[in-house]
Amino acid sequence: MNLWFTEEQTSDINLSCRVVDVLLDKQSAYQKIAVINTVSFGRMLVLDGYIQTSEGDGFIYHEMIIHVPMATHPSPRKVLVIGGGDGGAVQEALKHPHVEQVTLVEIDHEVVEACRRYLPKTSGALGDSRVKICYEDGVKFLYQPEDRYDIIIIDSSEPTGPSADLFSQEFYRRAYGALSEEGILVAQTESPFCNGELITRSFTYFQELFPIAELYLASIPSYPSGLWSFMLGSRKHHPGDSRAMKRAGKIAGCRYYSPEIHESAFVLPPFVKGLLPRLQK
Amino acid sequence: MNLWFTEEQTSDINLSCRVVDVLLDKQSAYQKIAVINTVSFGRMLVLDGYIQTSEGDGFIYHEMIIHVPMATHPSPRKVLVIGGGDGGAVQEALKHPHVEQVTLVEIDHEVVEACRRYLPKTSGALGDSRVKICYEDGVKFLYQPEDRYDIIIIDSSEPTGPSADLFSQEFYRRAYGALSEEGILVAQTESPFCNGELITRSFTYFQELFPIAELYLASIPSYPSGLWSFMLGSRKHHPGDSRAMKRAGKIAGCRYYSPEIHESAFVLPPFVKGLLPRLQK
Repeated sequence: MNLWFTEEQTSDINLSCRVVDVLLDKQSAYQKIAVINTVSFGRMLVLDGYIQTSEGDGFIYHEMIIHVPMATHPSPRKVLVIGGGDGGAVQEALKHPHVEQVTLVEIDHEVVEACRRYLPKTSGALGDSRVKICYEDGVKFLYQPEDRYDIIIIDSSEPTGPSADLFSQEFYRRAYGALSEEGILVAQTESPFCNGELITRSFTYFQELFPIAELYLASIPSYPSGLWSFMLGSRKHHPGDSRAMKRAGKIAGCRYYSPEIHESAFVLPPFVKGLLPRLQK
Repeated sequence: MNLWFTEEQTSDINLSCRVVDVLLDKQSAYQKIAVINTVSFGRMLVLDGYIQTSEGDGFIYHEMIIHVPMATHPSPRKVLVIGGGDGGAVQEALKHPHVEQVTLVEIDHEVVEACRRYLPKTSGALGDSRVKICYEDGVKFLYQPEDRYDIIIIDSSEPTGPSADLFSQEFYRRAYGALSEEGILVAQTESPFCNGELITRSFTYFQELFPIAELYLASIPSYPSGLWSFMLGSRKHHPGDSRAMKRAGKIAGCRYYSPEIHESAFVLPPFVKGLLPRLQK
């Protein structure tokens, strides 16, 4: 059968992938959840029609959203991941020797169940004894956080679905408040080519909150435009610090991340720099 | 009208762009030539169904294929562009003050005519008095090159169509032979995600020929995977040299290229490094 999945990346660009078979296609209380097996990317999690992660290129997103902040922090013990029910970020976080506890806050338990069943390579670490899963709205969780976290990761889906509030100023403020004294927040902030306004707006929020606010990039072929951005807000430690580089060198077994990539990911083309307002403080 | 253009990026991935109107759609002696106006990328040149350049993101490709080698060379006077009938590479080359002559060797005069008519922002410099256009097969041209060139750019289309021979060992050898003593060759070498074997093979050829052989990357959203590679072979000058950085700082008005991007473009993720065999010399 000549079977294709098409993602409407924007209203004017579609990406289509040849499909081997559809493993899951259901409606949860929050969204449509599908897992498809594609020729080019292997198994792929799709929420409300948008590609979330794949066996083929998910490593790039998960390595970059986790190792950049975790190498920047001298000894991250407590990690909070909001969204990210696929478990990929959790898996990378557990590679750091200091980590004692990873809390995953995912609104939709059916996403976690789908990934445990169909994406074991991504979700494999969710059963680790250091992992605590809270099936809760990330915004509500941060109203009364249980703890203070050294690293908070906002691993949201698109800014249009159930994740919309995870891009708000109020949410970033609450995340800031739930950080430990030397804490670091990283959020995925979409594509500089397709979502420039969201990046500009989010960066304003980060700059208002954090003494150190930076944007970094990674190439992720299954995401719109292939170029993806992450925003880092840090209370004390700078990602370009030489000690961060040294720690980055100790993270083994990555296929995208390296100490050199840690550094070069913060080098922005002029047109991306132009999206970032620089506040006078 | 709900009009879409679809590129078969690989046999298993399609990219579709919403089309405003089709400006040209014809068959030349060599290939199908189309110019379409898209919502996301503006006007776009399409050869045999493959996107070559667009008003929206063509600047990235042209800035990166030209300014990296030209900043690496201390005084590039003579430039040869093989392929690249859209004129975008020629236009960027002419921004360098030392340039006395840019020779464009394009097999298909109808490509040049189409771009002059429909893509004036890209092809605008083709009428410059320093530009000489030869409508000839690039391979044949290099059998008996008219001159020696400080910079040779292989700005080819896909390795499957009329450009197939522009990826061969013999062609790279002839290009090497047409370089001046301090000359630099750069070739576009497709996507590390989709064309890893081509990159591995081409890098072997470059390493056999040049004392300095390096791969560098740029994010180009309309190209397969969004991540593109360029191979640089240099007889004398290293692109990471501090004097190259200094010269890079003098190239004004770029939207993607900068001295920092010049440097970071050579930082390769481990999975890309893994594509490059390192010869023992």
